[in-house]
Amino acid sequence: MSSLLIGQSGGPTSVINSSLIGAVKQALKEEKIDNIYGALYGISGVLSENFLNLKEYENELDTLAHTPAALLGSVRFMLPEPTIGNETYEKILSVFKKYNIEYFFYIGGNDSMDTCNKLNVYFQKVSFKCKVIGIPKTIDNDLVLTDHCPGYGSAAKYVATTLMEIYQDIQVYEKGRVTIVEIMGRDAGWLTAASKLTRINDEGVDLIYLPEVPFDMSEFLNSVKTIYQKNKKVLVAVSEGIRDKNGEYILKYRSFNNNDSFGHLQLGGVSLVLCKIINEQLGLSTRAIELNLPQRCASHLTSLTDFKEAANCGKWAVKYALKGKTGVMISMNRISDYKIKYDCVPLSKVASFVKGFPTEWIINNNDISDEYLSYALPLIKGETGPKFYQGLPVHKKIKR
Amino acid sequence: MSSLLIGQSGGPTSVINSSLIGAVKQALKEEKIDNIYGALYGISGVLSENFLNLKEYENELDTLAHTPAALLGSVRFMLPEPTIGNETYEKILSVFKKYNIEYFFYIGGNDSMDTCNKLNVYFQKVSFKCKVIGIPKTIDNDLVLTDHCPGYGSAAKYVATTLMEIYQDIQVYEKGRVTIVEIMGRDAGWLTAASKLTRINDEGVDLIYLPEVPFDMSEFLNSVKTIYQKNKKVLVAVSEGIRDKNGEYILKYRSFNNNDSFGHLQLGGVSLVLCKIINEQLGLSTRAIELNLPQRCASHLTSLTDFKEAANCGKWAVKYALKGKTGVMISMNRISDYKIKYDCVPLSKVASFVKGFPTEWIINNNDISDEYLSYALPLIKGETGPKFYQGLPVHKKIKR
Repeated sequence: MSSLLIGQSGGPTSVINSSLIGAVKQALKEEKIDNIYGALYGISGVLSENFLNLKEYENELDTLAHTPAALLGSVRFMLPEPTIGNETYEKILSVFKKYNIEYFFYIGGNDSMDTCNKLNVYFQKVSFKCKVIGIPKTIDNDLVLTDHCPGYGSAAKYVATTLMEIYQDIQVYEKGRVTIVEIMGRDAGWLTAASKLTRINDEGVDLIYLPEVPFDMSEFLNSVKTIYQKNKKVLVAVSEGIRDKNGEYILKYRSFNNNDSFGHLQLGGVSLVLCKIINEQLGLSTRAIELNLPQRCASHLTSLTDFKEAANCGKWAVKYALKGKTGVMISMNRISDYKIKYDCVPLSKVASFVKGFPTEWIINNNDISDEYLSYALPLIKGETGPKFYQGLPVHKKIKR
Repeated sequence: MSSLLIGQSGGPTSVINSSLIGAVKQALKEEKIDNIYGALYGISGVLSENFLNLKEYENELDTLAHTPAALLGSVRFMLPEPTIGNETYEKILSVFKKYNIEYFFYIGGNDSMDTCNKLNVYFQKVSFKCKVIGIPKTIDNDLVLTDHCPGYGSAAKYVATTLMEIYQDIQVYEKGRVTIVEIMGRDAGWLTAASKLTRINDEGVDLIYLPEVPFDMSEFLNSVKTIYQKNKKVLVAVSEGIRDKNGEYILKYRSFNNNDSFGHLQLGGVSLVLCKIINEQLGLSTRAIELNLPQRCASHLTSLTDFKEAANCGKWAVKYALKGKTGVMISMNRISDYKIKYDCVPLSKVASFVKGFPTEWIINNNDISDEYLSYALPLIKGETGPKFYQGLPVHKKIKR
């Protein structure tokens, strides 16, 4: 009896379930795999043996794949260093032995790849034979050694579409206004860069600020003023994580903040800070828009390319595991314009690294070069034609 | 030579251009109408003779109908009382005479119907023969004497879909959190009530607060606490315009505000105020989400029913004008489940009145009855299958 265990971790994306279902569908075809378990709430479900039999969902897989957010639940949980005798690892090992887990897949971003890597290192140390494979997932697109990450294409499509609609809206009045749209991305500006896609027909976002380069308030105010004098409308896309040249977050003036469970500063609010400064310094009317959670869960606007690639990453995890690969993450290589080859890269070279937006694609600290458009356009291509019933999207949950 | 003039006014909706194009298509069929002009930026375009020949767009009408926001531009402009000798009215009259305007249509909400009504009263006083007809449009759904308003169905569909996706997202973590989603609607709670549609399969928004009933902070905190203790997740939908029993806006604690050009308090921010209070009083983790402009411009999620009805309102304005009607607004009567009869109602009985959400459909000040579902479900039905090119929505502008 050989079992496969799969979990989801970190922030959801529109296609994280497509990867899950892609893996399950492939596993169902493999004779070597007898059981397919889902760990609820990621690694914490492993520790508490909170498992589901995913074979029971065989007839609902397609609807499940289109449901946003992590079907198995997620977690933000960092494993300690993998030392022999550590009780967290001993617990995990005993659970894996009990359920005959020979294949373990973890769908997630940087932190999840770190978890995966540590688990693999530990299993090697104690000579436990289990194939551990990471399946990439992040709207931040910041995993190294892969052309891009599942989840990014859909988030980028959502950001670009929404900004194109906002652009149309703000043109409507003769009265002038500065609109600041705040986009997710703590350390990497990939998602904010997607605002450049609005300019494919020349019109769209005027100014784009990423966290990869220091934010200069006086340059910002000058640029806003110049564009306002010309057009009376200014549309600015700004990453939540922009920092000044001293490395300080621009949202530092915000009156209240929470910390998330990793101790990261909980961001959001920089658009309000910038609006207030524009009000005070330039005397212009402003509007702050924070795109917020829909960036990672608006599955009605999923990119078909992203959806298929996410499923393929799940499928290839199963295939590579059965070929004996372990301690790797599935990666996507762009081999032509546009074709993807699914490969493996060592988890040790991925875990906790961050791939920032290429600074050579940033122009004047406030614009993005057309090279990015060639990179990003294939990723947002196609629509999934989401199912609606009675005018509302059809979602299907797994009973947790 | 007989001319038709049409303008758009107030906040955009996803289907305001469908009404415009509906009117233009019908006018093109009518032999009595020689010219079809669009007034740019509403009544201010009338005063400045800023007109477009809409016949030039004959081959692009379908794409134009699907573009969000007001194609002709919009304005917030209140006419003075219609007295003979007033120079604003004299200017309008001279422009109408110069262009032989025999039919004037104005697409808008309460304030625009007031403009329409005053213009009609003035024309009657000076015995100028022009058919003046209002075409309803508002995401707020607050015009009287019509079952509902074009623009509402699409905005409600956007609100419900987005909240269903957010609901899936916030279930993902075991960690608890209170999520407050802020929805447009200064005086009327119709759009916030659309959050009830998420509960069609029993799960969704937990608490709903509309401006029609006084907001009681201690009831709110108690309700949040009770649901949190049970589920660890609380999803609250709240109208931007909620007020306490003294009529004071709950967002009064917000540090900075702008006024719009009518002197209305510029809303937005009540979700942050409530989050802060929950943090302080209950010690719970929170997230504020303001749905913001996409509520009125997310045309990729337009309701097909709404889109068609908006076009029909435009079409019927032309038909009724040619039948000699003036000083009326097109209204929609629900004559069966579900069929609409397009009728006329006197502008004088519509202008500046507000139809609030029925208080008998509000349960315990924090929930909505199922009668609302029967009312709203037909309005959000169907999708328009928006056109995408290269993964992005296709928008077409009118050169202003």
